[in-house]
Amino acid sequence: MSEQKHQLKTKNPAGRLEAFSDGVLAIIVTIMVLELKAPHGTDWAAIKPLVPVLISYVMSFLFVGVYWGNHHHLLHTVKRLSAGIMLANLHLLFWLSLVPFATAWMGENHFAPLTVAVYAGLLCVCGLAYTILQKAIEACHRDDLRLKTVMERHSRKGIFSVIAYLSAIPLAYVEPYISVGIFFLVAIVWLVPERSFLMEED
Amino acid sequence: MSEQKHQLKTKNPAGRLEAFSDGVLAIIVTIMVLELKAPHGTDWAAIKPLVPVLISYVMSFLFVGVYWGNHHHLLHTVKRLSAGIMLANLHLLFWLSLVPFATAWMGENHFAPLTVAVYAGLLCVCGLAYTILQKAIEACHRDDLRLKTVMERHSRKGIFSVIAYLSAIPLAYVEPYISVGIFFLVAIVWLVPERSFLMEED
Amino acid sequence: MSEQKHQLKTKNPAGRLEAFSDGVLAIIVTIMVLELKAPHGTDWAAIKPLVPVLISYVMSFLFVGVYWGNHHHLLHTVKRLSAGIMLANLHLLFWLSLVPFATAWMGENHFAPLTVAVYAGLLCVCGLAYTILQKAIEACHRDDLRLKTVMERHSRKGIFSVIAYLSAIPLAYVEPYISVGIFFLVAIVWLVPERSFLMEED
Amino acid sequence: MSEQKHQLKTKNPAGRLEAFSDGVLAIIVTIMVLELKAPHGTDWAAIKPLVPVLISYVMSFLFVGVYWGNHHHLLHTVKRLSAGIMLANLHLLFWLSLVPFATAWMGENHFAPLTVAVYAGLLCVCGLAYTILQKAIEACHRDDLRLKTVMERHSRKGIFSVIAYLSAIPLAYVEPYISVGIFFLVAIVWLVPERSFLMEED
Repeated sequence: MSEQKHQLKTKNPAGRLEAFSDGVLAIIVTIMVLELKAPHGTDWAAIKPLVPVLISYVMSFLFVGVYWGNHHHLLHTVKRLSAGIMLANLHLLFWLSLVPFATAWMGENHFAPLTVAVYAGLLCVCGLAYTILQKAIEACHRDDLRLKTVMERHSRKGIFSVIAYLSAIPLAYVEPYISVGIFFLVAIVWLVPERSFLMEED
Repeated sequence: MSEQKHQLKTKNPAGRLEAFSDGVLAIIVTIMVLELKAPHGTDWAAIKPLVPVLISYVMSFLFVGVYWGNHHHLLHTVKRLSAGIMLANLHLLFWLSLVPFATAWMGENHFAPLTVAVYAGLLCVCGLAYTILQKAIEACHRDDLRLKTVMERHSRKGIFSVIAYLSAIPLAYVEPYISVGIFFLVAIVWLVPERSFLMEED
Repeated sequence: MSEQKHQLKTKNPAGRLEAFSDGVLAIIVTIMVLELKAPHGTDWAAIKPLVPVLISYVMSFLFVGVYWGNHHHLLHTVKRLSAGIMLANLHLLFWLSLVPFATAWMGENHFAPLTVAVYAGLLCVCGLAYTILQKAIEACHRDDLRLKTVMERHSRKGIFSVIAYLSAIPLAYVEPYISVGIFFLVAIVWLVPERSFLMEED
Repeated sequence: MSEQKHQLKTKNPAGRLEAFSDGVLAIIVTIMVLELKAPHGTDWAAIKPLVPVLISYVMSFLFVGVYWGNHHHLLHTVKRLSAGIMLANLHLLFWLSLVPFATAWMGENHFAPLTVAVYAGLLCVCGLAYTILQKAIEACHRDDLRLKTVMERHSRKGIFSVIAYLSAIPLAYVEPYISVGIFFLVAIVWLVPERSFLMEED
């Protein structure tokens, strides 16, 4: 009985943290689509000005989607919930909640340099906030080997992402679409290898 | 104990995937209602221009509702979660997230041919994305018979839907309301037989 | 083992139906607050035109809150999920999703007779949709006594509510605020006795 | 078996209450970001008018985040659900749902005295609603010691918060930024010690 109780208790200690985060992430993803305002014209020309808005939406959808996936894997490793984890999670959600704003600013202004640089900066800060959440979880689970492996794999990709995003800031002033290419590249790096890694594991 | 652990683990492997998808689908359904902007007039004439917006809302509500139902049944068959399933699910949610935009464009422009054709095209792509999600789940569950039965039943309806939606694209240029009729017909086909099938099973 | 499996299975058969409904109801409640647009003035006079909007918001918040509570109790009695229940639930959510529109129309137009009558009509239809959901659940659980007791209690209040809402339609043309009073009265009838009933039971 | 049944039943009696509250809180937090409207300019000057809006967003994000955290701990202590708890919870959510409005009003008007005073007043009322929820839970769990300890700790902080918010109302007419400082101070008081307390406990 006591072992079962333990199991039921530890099965999903982060359940409500996940539920709240899922809610916020789902809303972040979906309110971005509100920027795609229906035009009053009814030919292809009416849709044309929406193309940059749509591109920025696709990019941010991928970005938030990747975060949701990683967040999903990361919280699965949580066996004990600390206030530090809750704070770090709230901190991450705060920066992610600014993504719709940065996306809209960039999309509406057709990828003007400053808007792309601010977007790149925000993605950097989100990456940093994610790392802080990782560290908060590690601080609570020092003796967990599975967690360590996940963390190391994430850390390598994380360092790559931060370098990529940082380089996208000055490059936005050279040619914004190089930075946009970098954003898509990072998203793909996170999306694709994750596939092979998970296929092996499960 | 180990069997119970297994059971608890397999009981709902897709739990958070469902929660996130539910969140996104619930928001998609509900933000569409924001297009029904309250008119300033206070007689029936003030509401009249809202009728096409309302019709397109009903149609998309049914469409997303049917997807939610099918998604519900489909994910119930999931016993193992792969990165492929997560990606395919994200892909499906992306296309569904464009439904409010296509709905608003069509409703505000009183079912102009191009808007109806784009709407039909989007429904097609959603159907395709749903099929990809099915295939990703099948690839993970080759030995599951119950899944196979569900899949086959879905496949027949799926092929019918895609043909219907594809035919609605050119028909939108002949008479948009024929296409609208097709959209409702497909929704009803999905809604009604599902009922008898479930009644038997449970 | 098999009994436990049964229990785990029947513990929450409506889990995802509840989650989706919770999502939709939470969004319905919260998007209504978007109608409370922040005025640009910074004195009390600037807030004054918002008073009818606020009153209509309070009323609809209570109304949806009562529905959430009843829906909560009703779905707790569900032991088997049928397609009929899922359809009836979707049908109820559809009508409830129109509440923000009706609320905004009524609030912005300072309770003009037609807007109040339409609001009353919508509440009627929501009540009807709720009754249909009850019947769909009853059709699946003919042998459940606890359900029967809940249903009967609900039915009496339900009939009272429908009569009250129906009488509010013509009364809106006499004096809209009588109808508004009726809306509040019905909400209070649902909120208050529920309290004593639950206190006894648990 | 019966003990296990009991355990499964009492494990999360407030499950759906939490889910609904999470949904509403997640939406409240996220719709506030919609006030950060993307400017059409593409230089830093275009972003400058958004700074007070951003500050008020950060403040309200922290405020709602703290409420989510406390609500999380509080509902974990719930073993029996009464109608009183459900009503008190709905009442709390109502006042919290007005936070986006008060935030927008204050942010758009650059912390004009009345807007800051109204914001302070709203935070007071939210605190009061939270206390009512606490009392409703206590009334249902008179014999629970763990609950008592949590309650006492909360009560001390709660009294401090209410005094701080009340003093922020007149101070808004002296210098609004003193009140803003008080809002941040209270948020930090709730965020920080919570950390140490939880770290010890788990």
